[in-house]
Amino acid sequence: MAKYSLGIDFGTLSARAVIVNIETKEEIASSVHEYKHGVITENLPENYALQHPADYIEALYFIIKNCIEKSSVNPSDIVGVGVDFTSCTILPVDKNGTPLCFLDEFRDNPHAYVKLWKHHATQKEADEITNLAKETNAPWLGQYGETTSCEGMFPKILEILKADENLYNKTHRFIEAGDWIVWLLTGKETHSVCATGFKAIWNEKTGYPDKEFLKKLDPRLENIVGTKLSTDIKLLSETAGYITKEIADKTGLIEGTPVSPPFIDAHAALPALGVTKPGELLMILGTSSCHIALSDKEMNIPGICGYVKNGIIDGLYAFEAGQPCVGDCLNWFVENCTPHAYYVEAEKEGVSIHQYLTEKAKIISPHENSLVALDWWNGSRTPYVNANLSGKILGLTLATKSEEIYRALIEATAYGTKRIIDIYEENGIEINKVYATGGIAEKNELFMQIYSDVTGKEIFLSDTPYGCAYGSAVLGATHYEKYGSLPIASEKMKKIKPFTYKPNPENKEIYQKLYKKYVSLSEYFAKGELSNQKKKM
Amino acid sequence: MAKYSLGIDFGTLSARAVIVNIETKEEIASSVHEYKHGVITENLPENYALQHPADYIEALYFIIKNCIEKSSVNPSDIVGVGVDFTSCTILPVDKNGTPLCFLDEFRDNPHAYVKLWKHHATQKEADEITNLAKETNAPWLGQYGETTSCEGMFPKILEILKADENLYNKTHRFIEAGDWIVWLLTGKETHSVCATGFKAIWNEKTGYPDKEFLKKLDPRLENIVGTKLSTDIKLLSETAGYITKEIADKTGLIEGTPVSPPFIDAHAALPALGVTKPGELLMILGTSSCHIALSDKEMNIPGICGYVKNGIIDGLYAFEAGQPCVGDCLNWFVENCTPHAYYVEAEKEGVSIHQYLTEKAKIISPHENSLVALDWWNGSRTPYVNANLSGKILGLTLATKSEEIYRALIEATAYGTKRIIDIYEENGIEINKVYATGGIAEKNELFMQIYSDVTGKEIFLSDTPYGCAYGSAVLGATHYEKYGSLPIASEKMKKIKPFTYKPNPENKEIYQKLYKKYVSLSEYFAKGELSNQKKKM
Repeated sequence: MAKYSLGIDFGTLSARAVIVNIETKEEIASSVHEYKHGVITENLPENYALQHPADYIEALYFIIKNCIEKSSVNPSDIVGVGVDFTSCTILPVDKNGTPLCFLDEFRDNPHAYVKLWKHHATQKEADEITNLAKETNAPWLGQYGETTSCEGMFPKILEILKADENLYNKTHRFIEAGDWIVWLLTGKETHSVCATGFKAIWNEKTGYPDKEFLKKLDPRLENIVGTKLSTDIKLLSETAGYITKEIADKTGLIEGTPVSPPFIDAHAALPALGVTKPGELLMILGTSSCHIALSDKEMNIPGICGYVKNGIIDGLYAFEAGQPCVGDCLNWFVENCTPHAYYVEAEKEGVSIHQYLTEKAKIISPHENSLVALDWWNGSRTPYVNANLSGKILGLTLATKSEEIYRALIEATAYGTKRIIDIYEENGIEINKVYATGGIAEKNELFMQIYSDVTGKEIFLSDTPYGCAYGSAVLGATHYEKYGSLPIASEKMKKIKPFTYKPNPENKEIYQKLYKKYVSLSEYFAKGELSNQKKKM
Repeated sequence: MAKYSLGIDFGTLSARAVIVNIETKEEIASSVHEYKHGVITENLPENYALQHPADYIEALYFIIKNCIEKSSVNPSDIVGVGVDFTSCTILPVDKNGTPLCFLDEFRDNPHAYVKLWKHHATQKEADEITNLAKETNAPWLGQYGETTSCEGMFPKILEILKADENLYNKTHRFIEAGDWIVWLLTGKETHSVCATGFKAIWNEKTGYPDKEFLKKLDPRLENIVGTKLSTDIKLLSETAGYITKEIADKTGLIEGTPVSPPFIDAHAALPALGVTKPGELLMILGTSSCHIALSDKEMNIPGICGYVKNGIIDGLYAFEAGQPCVGDCLNWFVENCTPHAYYVEAEKEGVSIHQYLTEKAKIISPHENSLVALDWWNGSRTPYVNANLSGKILGLTLATKSEEIYRALIEATAYGTKRIIDIYEENGIEINKVYATGGIAEKNELFMQIYSDVTGKEIFLSDTPYGCAYGSAVLGATHYEKYGSLPIASEKMKKIKPFTYKPNPENKEIYQKLYKKYVSLSEYFAKGELSNQKKKM
């Protein structure tokens, strides 16, 4: 009798479910549902990005039910459920798990809604935390590359506390939306190590920041740990709970089906590709990119987003580094800097402007005089952790064509990735296998070839169109007795394309020279005489 | 009885004549004629730029005759003729002044034709001359900013000598096209101090490079001075000769009308604006730009194009500095980097894309985070004299709009101009009055306001649409007894717009900060660690 797993992926604009045959790896059915309210920014201050938790509930019921119906699978053959969710995406709830925004009292209060990962209004709070951590030599600072991201849990909570103490006081828990969904499915509140470790300043040795630190940050935060922040942190290898009768009735799942603690969405891609061993690196390449590496050793790495022991795979440290502007940079270029004549030609040929530019960029051979860009259109995450750094294009002449700039931007993001790999390696994580997934990895051959040429690494690609949802299904499959752990389930179910990108030796050599320029320029702009200015340069 | 002067301007693509009433300053008539062969580059090696001297003759006769006819002026009321010509634009001629390319023997030899100023195939020869000058401590090297331009007379002659010794041997004179036109008009060979000083390594103290130097450069050049290069150098205040009967018959001018030695074309703009005193600066702003300053002191200035005593005004040193890419940079941007949507909008509004971008760029206020560009799309002339330097755009973010880049490019060329003014002032020429002329000065208010804000100087503008031709007419008017010198004629005839551009104090302050960044960045890229590479950066 065939066995199946259900993977559920909550992205920024929609949620998706997929049912996978855990032996044949076949994606039997899938279902997608967009959030009715999308990302809520209207009539809100700058950099706010909220969501409505009712959208999640609606999507959750719909996609499970729809997916099961489409699949014609007997729900009793579904061995488990895995979930992933964007993070840090949090909401305040009462002791029943009801979002405070559902209560009349807080219906009009933006702070009672979900604060989406990209709610960036919290830079001030993040800076406060970073500064205090530096002053007090907080032991966890190195775990997060010596800085606190504005996207994290504590800046968001601090913002709520400052904005509305009443709301803060009436909050029973601040909870990751992923954990909240699992609570909804299982009737049981748990918290996943994955988001807690990466986004809420938590590690398995010392837990959250200590009382003294929290008190200094704001006296009202002194006792938040264990009250408004749960200390019941579960590994992904554990079972968060079991599908309740109510959910079973609403979705068609069988009551008692086991559910895993949730992944951060991007992290779910690791088991989808079989990335479970020390020295393996997964690049998730989209509008921005992140680079997750596994290691059996603990180490502080400058400019990293964070690392968490057992964060994804039991017994291993998961490290995350990132570039805040990858596909976004090319989209910016197409919207703002691609000439009229190319649009006209692309239309005539019936191809997208990206395709048109890519075809032209493909035939350019890199050479010593190639343009060099710094890929900081949205600041630098790893290694400089500086949102004020800005993009640069160098080497322009009257003969420079639009497609050369387009290619230079791709190359710049590739240099940024090589820099991250170099930093991993310099700090003791030898990267011996590189994988890629995400929209760009799937769609853009030129991009991937340049990444291989620049990094000098062979690149293995994901072979499922369901990305993170597929990875969550692999996690769900760990509840099948024979697949008992994520590395085993992943080894059985991983989907990798039969072809890989291998470095072209000539280009690799040229790119090594250009990469040296990139590094020199990066150091100059991030640390040189002009970097002392507070403002962008 | 009204008196008139005839000004003749030979540009890169056409020649123009204008007849001016020397008392009322009214431009009575003008005439233009395009060169039939234009700039000849077809079937020629890279960087060749030739012209056909027959085109000049055809244009010369046509524009004079046509202009006189249109004017209804009695030719006997024309007091004199002034001429300007692009430079260094040279041709080899026989002892009658016949271009060698007119002879059957050389009809198919590109080296027998006119080498236009922008014939840039001579970089190798220029480097040879610069290197030998440095080795031998040539006393004239400082006069040319420590370098020899590939556009100069000697690189062009050396190229001919190497390519075809027979042609070289049969050349009676290598002559500037401007001097050759005056020879044609007057039947008398003379050579103007203006082009000779700026373009042929000549000064009033030591003349041309000495025999020893020339012999080392190539033994066959040892005796060129006084044979194939004339030593009969005339000041602009002298009379080159008088219109011959033959020319009078062909053009309608009166035989015996005096003709001045020719200006380099851009230099003719000085008397048109009344720029005749020490401390005055004229910016000629077009596809590229040059900055001519007058001083009563001699000094070596790094990166300058050259300086010549009596080069324009008797008794004063004329200094020339330059930027090789100004309007060209904006044209590059519009062709290669202006988005489709803007073209569509501009078309809808019925304005040019430059106008459309300018309107959008106008409303941007400069601020500390403004983009900073380095204006080196065509290398740097003053101060770095390095054709391998390239353009840069710094400070890009996902929010950057096309018009911000457009404005940043204008600002970059303005910083380049401020740098030149600073270099003049640091070396002892205090610039106390700034004038502008050229296509950009006439057409682009935004450009001019930015130049005023960045330089902190009030800018006075030319008020004649005939530019250089008008300046040549002022030179022609020096033959009128009462106007006997260029400063006097210029004072009587200068045409300056009634309004000026004055710095906006707020913008001036911001631009001072941004200019500091520009200088730091310039020094880094021209002299820092990456500048050691031979290749563009």
